[in-house]
Amino acid sequence: MFLMKETTIKAASHSYPVYIGENLRHQTAQYFHKDYSSILIITDETVADCYLSDVKNSLAHENVFSYVIQAGEKAKSIDTFYQLHTQAIECGLDRQSLMIALGGGVVGDVAGFAAATFMRGIDFIQMPTTILAHDSSVGGKVAINHEQGKNMIGSFYAPAGVIYDVQTLHSLPDHEIRSGYAELLKEALLADVDLYQLLISNDLSVLSSQDLSYKLQRGIEIKAGIVEIDERESGIRKHLNLGHTLGHALESLLGYGYQTHGELVALGLLFAFRVSEKKFTPELPFEQLYTWLKRNGYPLNMPFIKPEEILAKMKKDKKTLRTEIQMVLLKSMAQPVLMEINDESLLEYLEDFQTELAQRNS
Amino acid sequence: MFLMKETTIKAASHSYPVYIGENLRHQTAQYFHKDYSSILIITDETVADCYLSDVKNSLAHENVFSYVIQAGEKAKSIDTFYQLHTQAIECGLDRQSLMIALGGGVVGDVAGFAAATFMRGIDFIQMPTTILAHDSSVGGKVAINHEQGKNMIGSFYAPAGVIYDVQTLHSLPDHEIRSGYAELLKEALLADVDLYQLLISNDLSVLSSQDLSYKLQRGIEIKAGIVEIDERESGIRKHLNLGHTLGHALESLLGYGYQTHGELVALGLLFAFRVSEKKFTPELPFEQLYTWLKRNGYPLNMPFIKPEEILAKMKKDKKTLRTEIQMVLLKSMAQPVLMEINDESLLEYLEDFQTELAQRNS
Repeated sequence: MFLMKETTIKAASHSYPVYIGENLRHQTAQYFHKDYSSILIITDETVADCYLSDVKNSLAHENVFSYVIQAGEKAKSIDTFYQLHTQAIECGLDRQSLMIALGGGVVGDVAGFAAATFMRGIDFIQMPTTILAHDSSVGGKVAINHEQGKNMIGSFYAPAGVIYDVQTLHSLPDHEIRSGYAELLKEALLADVDLYQLLISNDLSVLSSQDLSYKLQRGIEIKAGIVEIDERESGIRKHLNLGHTLGHALESLLGYGYQTHGELVALGLLFAFRVSEKKFTPELPFEQLYTWLKRNGYPLNMPFIKPEEILAKMKKDKKTLRTEIQMVLLKSMAQPVLMEINDESLLEYLEDFQTELAQRNS
Repeated sequence: MFLMKETTIKAASHSYPVYIGENLRHQTAQYFHKDYSSILIITDETVADCYLSDVKNSLAHENVFSYVIQAGEKAKSIDTFYQLHTQAIECGLDRQSLMIALGGGVVGDVAGFAAATFMRGIDFIQMPTTILAHDSSVGGKVAINHEQGKNMIGSFYAPAGVIYDVQTLHSLPDHEIRSGYAELLKEALLADVDLYQLLISNDLSVLSSQDLSYKLQRGIEIKAGIVEIDERESGIRKHLNLGHTLGHALESLLGYGYQTHGELVALGLLFAFRVSEKKFTPELPFEQLYTWLKRNGYPLNMPFIKPEEILAKMKKDKKTLRTEIQMVLLKSMAQPVLMEINDESLLEYLEDFQTELAQRNS
């Protein structure tokens, strides 16, 4: 028997429930806490083919509409955002209506931002269909991209709830499983050594629904615990950027979609281990993580991009306020700390890391 | 001697000060409560010519930028919104930066929405340069228009402060003075009979800075008092729509800018008086208000639009959730109440009102 798990997240504006379990998409309406005048489901082409009709059928509501956006990062655009508003108006949505974001992080971000701004904000429910989206679906960050920067236009806007049907995760391609799992590794490294050991105790090829549900719930709890303390990222929420300083820079330099977000974050975690070692000489399990990632098919060839270029891109990252790069490091396992690294040191670390990975791969 | 007045507004997220007085634009920086890394002043063509250099010069900050948008309602578009983000990125604004909205309601709304969404929200300061903007600059509503509806895309986002230089109001054209003053009349009618008597005790042609400062401060206090109780307009904030059910419908039917917002609201106030009389048979000073408006040049010819068309437009108004129109009426002076009016009655009232105004004008 497989149970549904429930966790409550406290946002500044309100608390909301996260439901995790199998087949939840067939009973969506039973997780609502309000009567809505109408419902607009927003999803992408890929997810629509698999799950849109399931969700529609589960709602048993006379005013259900859906709108399908293109799959991929390009949909996080001002154009899609405006189209969602057009659709919401044309479907007659009002302030008592609901938007459902059915899909991965892109759908959640753009639909969430549309909900945050439609008539100055209506309810929305996240229905993540990727492992990666366990991360973005809680914490209330919604946004679209500007041509000149990722997530530049957005809000802090918490959902009314998250309904997470883990059955939808089994149809994910391998690189998407790797991508989402890397964020789970990150959350465990920040706060829970036992979870970390559990995560790398088995391989991605043997993940069961039950196993995954537990891990996702723990990951969400860790993230929620951090976000509850610092919703607007003025302090410890920055710890969630562990592995992302390098990950984001590479993602941006290589072009989104060239390699998945989480696979690049995994590379960033290894880099954060190495920099942490230089700063604190701790005993971090670099070898163990490297070996697990390698065995599970993570691409660990660091693309050849000059360290100077990587550094320049890091500095353009919106999270950098000062001239020096702030990186999240680990003083030891589950002991994150934010540190400024000067340019000279960072260039040296990047070069060493590139050299090391090249040697390991030769 | 002329004193600066200060009022504090409590928003859900934070409290912020409103400064009202003469020449404040020459000392802008002294009203800041934070050090900002950079400042982007957003204004429109008309205001830029008069006051942009004054404000720039008053800042004495090395990273001050400005961006001038077109004057008028058309600037409340998705295109201008995106341009403001482009400008903010190109000027290197970060999370510690400030946007200043220098201008009327349009500038405040679009710049405020840009600030609300740039990197998920940075500080902004309202510097209203119209009487009408006393209303929009407090209360935290920011928005742009969708082609299919006014203010459809927006947020609740309170400013970091309001700096109101009443000297900038003397250069306003007469119809803009009439427009803003009508909102003051509305606020007084909702909550303060003494203020209402004061407002109509003299004519617009003899308004002094000192006189106006007092009235604006009281208007802002009334609005703030309502908004503090109901920021998200689930209840009594709707009272602020007194005069707007008809006003908005006409504005939308005639095209924005054909006649000013406040002039149409004034017509709406008269209509609300008449409907209130039918519902409650109170002693409302219709004649007194009509006479004052007429003497002060308010256009009181109700444009000939069929009542059915007006009703249809009211129903499209986003504030209407149900099928029946909700109107704010006065049980007596300073005793507002929200009432549903059925279609049949409303059509009759509109027809009577049109006939009455036509007769008075013939």
